[in-house]
Amino acid sequence: MKKIINKPEDVVKESVEGLGLAWSEIVKVNYEPMFVYRADAPVNNKVAIISGGGSGHEPMHAGFVGYGMLDAACPGEVFTSPTPDQMYEAAKKVHGGAGILFIVKNYSGDVMNFEMAADMLKAEGIDVENVIIDDDVAVKDSLYTQGRRGVGTTVLAEKICGAAAEKGYDLKKLAELCKKVNGWGRSMGMALTPCTVPAAGKPTFELAEDEMEIGIGIHGEPGRERMKIKSADEITEMLAEAIIEDLPFKEGDEVLAFVNSMGGTPEIELYIVYRKLYKILESKGIKIARKLVGRYITSLEMQGVSITLLKLDDELKELWDAPVKTPALRWGI
Amino acid sequence: MKKIINKPEDVVKESVEGLGLAWSEIVKVNYEPMFVYRADAPVNNKVAIISGGGSGHEPMHAGFVGYGMLDAACPGEVFTSPTPDQMYEAAKKVHGGAGILFIVKNYSGDVMNFEMAADMLKAEGIDVENVIIDDDVAVKDSLYTQGRRGVGTTVLAEKICGAAAEKGYDLKKLAELCKKVNGWGRSMGMALTPCTVPAAGKPTFELAEDEMEIGIGIHGEPGRERMKIKSADEITEMLAEAIIEDLPFKEGDEVLAFVNSMGGTPEIELYIVYRKLYKILESKGIKIARKLVGRYITSLEMQGVSITLLKLDDELKELWDAPVKTPALRWGI
Repeated sequence: MKKIINKPEDVVKESVEGLGLAWSEIVKVNYEPMFVYRADAPVNNKVAIISGGGSGHEPMHAGFVGYGMLDAACPGEVFTSPTPDQMYEAAKKVHGGAGILFIVKNYSGDVMNFEMAADMLKAEGIDVENVIIDDDVAVKDSLYTQGRRGVGTTVLAEKICGAAAEKGYDLKKLAELCKKVNGWGRSMGMALTPCTVPAAGKPTFELAEDEMEIGIGIHGEPGRERMKIKSADEITEMLAEAIIEDLPFKEGDEVLAFVNSMGGTPEIELYIVYRKLYKILESKGIKIARKLVGRYITSLEMQGVSITLLKLDDELKELWDAPVKTPALRWGI
Repeated sequence: MKKIINKPEDVVKESVEGLGLAWSEIVKVNYEPMFVYRADAPVNNKVAIISGGGSGHEPMHAGFVGYGMLDAACPGEVFTSPTPDQMYEAAKKVHGGAGILFIVKNYSGDVMNFEMAADMLKAEGIDVENVIIDDDVAVKDSLYTQGRRGVGTTVLAEKICGAAAEKGYDLKKLAELCKKVNGWGRSMGMALTPCTVPAAGKPTFELAEDEMEIGIGIHGEPGRERMKIKSADEITEMLAEAIIEDLPFKEGDEVLAFVNSMGGTPEIELYIVYRKLYKILESKGIKIARKLVGRYITSLEMQGVSITLLKLDDELKELWDAPVKTPALRWGI
């Protein structure tokens, strides 16, 4: 296992500590239980948005805490759900009196633990809405998931709902917006290589030197098909076609196109994928009105790429463009 | 070779095309010869700043074209210098009448080709200043370099000089500023793995499963020492100590701390390095006043990390904080 770490059991704690030291003007860290929260929390009369999940997908979620996005993020151990006390304590810290929105990727552990935290908070009279993101078109059920997995649309939902919360959306309206984003977002990924969870010390799965896996999950869960490596254009077509036909995205639609590295795939390759995606969408009369290209929802050092398309309307475009200031996503401020 | 590409010979062209399609509001692409330039070029009466070098280090340099940073970037083939006609034509396109600053990393091919372009431009009466970045403390001479290699400080020089150019610095003052940044910046990197140039199809060097190389160059040039993998804290100490003693950075100094992934090393590991770097500097009374953490000067999918420290004064802090809007670096706008 080649990693720049100290003890495997300290990876998450030390990394989150580093994030907090680097971005102390934006975030603070609570260690027992662990969560990262806005340095200016609570923001009074704003719905507080909290997400979380296993670590190893950085910058998601802790890198998205800050103005215009999340109020708190709860990192679990690598590829392991956070515990309900993390979400509960985070909520108590950032609640500004207008309720809490939990944005939860559809993995059984996450769903269960966020629900438990929501029940604890509701018992104390705090309003909580739980919205599940399940945008991965690759497979129906999966290793850790009933139904579809939650992947790239999560990043977009956190940005868009974060902007809406700053604008004053109330909890009910914000939860509806988050469901709309989930309903209009579709993703699929692929991998050339596995990754290694520090505590395990060996790769999560095996792929031959000439193989790739289409439809991979962000924890290395099996995808649709293992096959010989194809060209970037062919890979992009496979991902894009599965996504486009699923919603379906149609001629005249405006979309946000999100090309994401699983971590180890370099930027030079991401833009080769973006180029082909642009041409595919253009040929179908689908217009890319907004874009995001980079590493935003990763699987440690896994080489691979995922594509997310989100259908846009004026509301979503305006909220996407609104200022954001987090460690990993920033503009307009 | 596991990569998401089409033909190896099309990698740079297709990737740059993708960048141009994604960020058309910020950059345009010229293909013959190839350069990426500001969509609003030329900016009248502003010194135009141009950089470039071999591809494979993305987002550097094309990802740094835009308001507050570069006016143009000239990408060569992967790990290969661009040719003088690229810099010459780029300069003709973006020259706003106030002269041209070339920011050049210290590799023999780059230095020679930027000099040739400068001579061609000067022969036409265009003022050009050529500033060489040579901040890598690892080794004295190297595979492609006389003297020290140019690495992480390049990113900082492009940001800081870009802001100064927007502020109206004239060419002479801007070149002095760039030399000051180079004089105050020091870097060193290390690698856990090599990377593979697409056209070569095999790794640039070999490292055993339990080995790392300290002082590696961004093209895989030999560093100071090959050794057994050490802990993140020990690696950070080795890099930081070499950098700190070189300037030297002293108690009371304010610095910009830049922790950079060589590409394949994930963010979770970068913040473990940042954490230790923070503690080392704190123990020496050196204050991190600004920071940059992420993938900004990379070596394709190489796993490894580099650290850059830049001594700061009020001028550099103000210019660092100034608005910037490029594909890869953006704030305040």
